[in-house]
Amino acid sequence: MQKPSVPQGTRDFAPAVVRKRQYIFNTLKTMFERYGFQPIETPAMENLETLMGKYGEEGDRLIFKILNNGLHEKKDKARNTLMEEWEKVTSRSYSSTAVTERALRYDLTIPFARFVVMNQNDIAFPFRRYQMQPVWRADKPQSSRYREFWQCDADIVGSNSLINEAELLHIYCGAFDQLKVPVAVKVNSRKMLAGLAELCGAPEKMMEITIALDKLDKIGWTGVEKELTERGIEETGRNTIHRIIQTTGTNAEKLVAFGEIMQASEIGKAGVEEIKKTLDYYAALGGNTEHQLKVDISLARGLNYYTGIIVEVVCTDPNGAVGSIGGGGRYDDLTGLFGLKGISGVGISFGVDRIYDVLQKLDLFPAHLDSGAKIFILNLGGENEIYGLSLLRKIREAGLNAEMYADAAKFDKQMKYANKRGFAYVIIPGDSEREQNKVSLKFFLTGQQQLVGIDECVNVLKIAEQNNMNA
Amino acid sequence: MQKPSVPQGTRDFAPAVVRKRQYIFNTLKTMFERYGFQPIETPAMENLETLMGKYGEEGDRLIFKILNNGLHEKKDKARNTLMEEWEKVTSRSYSSTAVTERALRYDLTIPFARFVVMNQNDIAFPFRRYQMQPVWRADKPQSSRYREFWQCDADIVGSNSLINEAELLHIYCGAFDQLKVPVAVKVNSRKMLAGLAELCGAPEKMMEITIALDKLDKIGWTGVEKELTERGIEETGRNTIHRIIQTTGTNAEKLVAFGEIMQASEIGKAGVEEIKKTLDYYAALGGNTEHQLKVDISLARGLNYYTGIIVEVVCTDPNGAVGSIGGGGRYDDLTGLFGLKGISGVGISFGVDRIYDVLQKLDLFPAHLDSGAKIFILNLGGENEIYGLSLLRKIREAGLNAEMYADAAKFDKQMKYANKRGFAYVIIPGDSEREQNKVSLKFFLTGQQQLVGIDECVNVLKIAEQNNMNA
Repeated sequence: MQKPSVPQGTRDFAPAVVRKRQYIFNTLKTMFERYGFQPIETPAMENLETLMGKYGEEGDRLIFKILNNGLHEKKDKARNTLMEEWEKVTSRSYSSTAVTERALRYDLTIPFARFVVMNQNDIAFPFRRYQMQPVWRADKPQSSRYREFWQCDADIVGSNSLINEAELLHIYCGAFDQLKVPVAVKVNSRKMLAGLAELCGAPEKMMEITIALDKLDKIGWTGVEKELTERGIEETGRNTIHRIIQTTGTNAEKLVAFGEIMQASEIGKAGVEEIKKTLDYYAALGGNTEHQLKVDISLARGLNYYTGIIVEVVCTDPNGAVGSIGGGGRYDDLTGLFGLKGISGVGISFGVDRIYDVLQKLDLFPAHLDSGAKIFILNLGGENEIYGLSLLRKIREAGLNAEMYADAAKFDKQMKYANKRGFAYVIIPGDSEREQNKVSLKFFLTGQQQLVGIDECVNVLKIAEQNNMNA
Repeated sequence: MQKPSVPQGTRDFAPAVVRKRQYIFNTLKTMFERYGFQPIETPAMENLETLMGKYGEEGDRLIFKILNNGLHEKKDKARNTLMEEWEKVTSRSYSSTAVTERALRYDLTIPFARFVVMNQNDIAFPFRRYQMQPVWRADKPQSSRYREFWQCDADIVGSNSLINEAELLHIYCGAFDQLKVPVAVKVNSRKMLAGLAELCGAPEKMMEITIALDKLDKIGWTGVEKELTERGIEETGRNTIHRIIQTTGTNAEKLVAFGEIMQASEIGKAGVEEIKKTLDYYAALGGNTEHQLKVDISLARGLNYYTGIIVEVVCTDPNGAVGSIGGGGRYDDLTGLFGLKGISGVGISFGVDRIYDVLQKLDLFPAHLDSGAKIFILNLGGENEIYGLSLLRKIREAGLNAEMYADAAKFDKQMKYANKRGFAYVIIPGDSEREQNKVSLKFFLTGQQQLVGIDECVNVLKIAEQNNMNA
């Protein structure tokens, strides 16, 4: 028998990990709900045609496709006959398997666009939705990159107001505040990038300039300038770009400087104004625009569909450096892919698996998450077993999580189990305790033990639970 | 452009549906945690060899298989060359697609067994786990049967004690009590069924007898007797079976009668004793053994791997009749499939999609689940917009969920949105309100409207929230 395993790039989640992940999901969910976002869920599998051609050539290759399982066998007899011949040639079984019409969800954005189009008559627009589900990509597995991973997205579609951008920035900052992760939320505008290309006299080269600029952190100005030259940007253009990336100071100061530089570009000026207005709304909603937000002209974001403000989140603690832990921006006409034109949207995404890594590295998970039930009753057999069960009942009826060892096994074996599980309290209902209608209550951490009545025992445990059971 | 759709047998879940489903998941989760169960999660995709051969021939056919995406292309050049020829013949693209090594999870039990074997050194046995995840089957879609559906399983492995059976019965009854679904939890024992076969002089025909008995509800005794005859059960055997299924009375009375009938079968007697002992434990844990539990010798359960007590849950309200909404039992040696012998287990499963249907049919979902944020602020533009945002901030800081219309759209348009979303409160921060540092607070249900200060507004909303916002 082969040793069992999980497919490469996928993971089992043991209890302690599930609880930590739930802590992240619940924090985000509370935040989304606070801001009036509504949950939706879409199926793991989509029609192949829904996904294909939406993520570029590379994306198409990485979509996991599902075999038809003979679900459509009868439709195509000619093919089946050929298939059987082919099977004889290759001595393998391919019949009814080689056609695929379904694929696994590659991201949450395209399924969301499809959902909006299909449910356009039932949805109240502007529609604020959040979605927290796994996606699958046939990527080469590597550290912090999985073939099954989770996305948490919040989007607003059907509104052009920059209040939406401000709200999403608040969700980012608020969520990471809640999680205690120190972050910088980089903010840029595709319109500023387009303005920059105009100022370079090369409006058609916006993507090339953006891609070069995005490497600033890695290759420095010398490297970027070299790349810009190779891509045909003239010296005046390169100087303008150099001037803009050298702009320092507060966000407010940067925006004044950008405004001056962009004077000659209508779209560039519009980009500056949009960021200014977004920050004004952000402040009206109670945020400090100079705290986590960083206006950053070198921010690119990979996806082609962004048209307005773009954002990206990184952890600012060097020990938590895992690359981007969130990103998003405004897009026009995403639903146009499925026949519904003129719906603008803006959205952000949380990279849950990377956020988990950051919390782990910075030791930011709350201590009490690790185990479930904290109360354990020893099974001392016979009448004591029944006595223990009646106590178990009372503890649970008080709203507390508890378990009793199911077998009247040896004391040592039961204590070893209790130890491995990490219970905070062990209750010992033995002969002498039972005869007095009492139990021994042992505090695992201190080793302290006391003889108490049953009601008192339940009360002590209830108070401890209210103190988060951190005894 | 083709009208977008989801694959047959799969579903989108709109916000109101997600909330109702979450209500079910949360109820079950709370119950599992109360009983000391711990959550695990496994990947959507498993290695094909993990799943194949575990669910019978029919099951193998229904497993959704995933194409290899060229992930292993280079390994098998000879195959690729042949594939290219084949593509020319058929004018289709099959290259790198016809081999599959991964498949979608078909149930939660086999992945759980695999998990236990892989993590046997880290797990504290007995291991109580729960798991709530979707599974996929290439079944023919029909009413209440989907290709993507959710299972919620609770299992205990590594203990033979019948306390485990009693605990799981409590979870069943407790969970459905919480959900307010009237249920019967049928209880039988594979050992009693084996005893019955022995009494018929045909111990090797246990499965045939069980399958015939399982049809009692549908085809009556005449039909069952005919089938038993066809399957070669002698008249004395048929009479014994008839006698046992005619046994009426309380569970306690039935067990006395079964005990007498089973006198001549050791395994049959053991089955009766196991149910008796389970019910004793159930009573010690505070349950009424004559309330929801129904000892039922005609209960079969499809899966072959059960060896001890088996259970099944049905809704007893005729308006909620959707077939079985849960089932389970004791199995031996499930982990033996993956090389870990001698681990006995017992588990139950909740059919979440059918439970949803029951709650819907019987109108049992709590009223307050339907919408998220209940508080809506109108956007009256200009200074009022900023004033509205500052109010929005205060409401959220008070821990309340709220949203403001992002665009300064026409009053009617905004009210139409509010109506469709079902908010309970609409806040109107207009010129005159702002000048007095107040707002108009409108109760959507009654139409009542009052002018209040900002702090008062927040207080009124907080109190309403505490009263579940059922204003």
